[in-house]
Amino acid sequence: MTAYDTNNIFAKILRGEIPCHKVYEDEHTFAFMDIMPRCPGHTLVIPKAPARNILDISPDSFAHVARTAKKIAVAGMKAFNAAGITLQQFSEPAAGQVVYHLHVHVMPRVEGVALLPPASRKEDVKVLEDHATRLIAALNG
Amino acid sequence: MTAYDTNNIFAKILRGEIPCHKVYEDEHTFAFMDIMPRCPGHTLVIPKAPARNILDISPDSFAHVARTAKKIAVAGMKAFNAAGITLQQFSEPAAGQVVYHLHVHVMPRVEGVALLPPASRKEDVKVLEDHATRLIAALNG
Repeated sequence: MTAYDTNNIFAKILRGEIPCHKVYEDEHTFAFMDIMPRCPGHTLVIPKAPARNILDISPDSFAHVARTAKKIAVAGMKAFNAAGITLQQFSEPAAGQVVYHLHVHVMPRVEGVALLPPASRKEDVKVLEDHATRLIAALNG
Repeated sequence: MTAYDTNNIFAKILRGEIPCHKVYEDEHTFAFMDIMPRCPGHTLVIPKAPARNILDISPDSFAHVARTAKKIAVAGMKAFNAAGITLQQFSEPAAGQVVYHLHVHVMPRVEGVALLPPASRKEDVKVLEDHATRLIAALNG
């Protein structure tokens, strides 16, 4: 497997070198809005420890990511008046991985509304800010 | 949210009332072949503790599921000569959930081969047996 690249975009977000719409952070994980959301509230959960994907992440680190994904899922239901949640995680190009720092997609779903195709449209910054605010309120509520 | 139904098909599999092609089991989780695989090696990882989906599962139980999904992913790469892994988990009908015991789909991917649509085709039992055998060998290897 290809080695972890410390200059991938999510590593830069973790180091604060690139801005993001952060919604959650704890000792082991970090969560922020996907800038090309497939649905309103589409959030990415990543480990702080470097890991390319599911193949090299430590079991402990992946367990921390799962705990945070559940938190975001529950908050996403409330924040976006959702009826369901889709989780996806892609490892390696054959699975559609594009950024090589492990990330879990947490996507609040509305009945009868399909997800947009991946990376089909960059969302307006004001919308992302509003969505992050709603998600943070639900996480704290 | 709808209450957990103790007679869902995965609860019956856990109780041994319905057969399955089991590949892994530990104190907290259980894994078996999807009988309608979207790709060769498509495996389902479930918690032993009752949970409808991500909304009601305990954080500990979901963390156990994540650890097992990683094990299956690594073994699936080897067993099916895969180039990547796709994980999916659906909660509630709006997200496409069909069986209401939390399950994570672990799908070994081959470059350029799309996943079949969900539930499009029931796999031959001999093929599922062979795939389970390969996955178990990789888990033990």
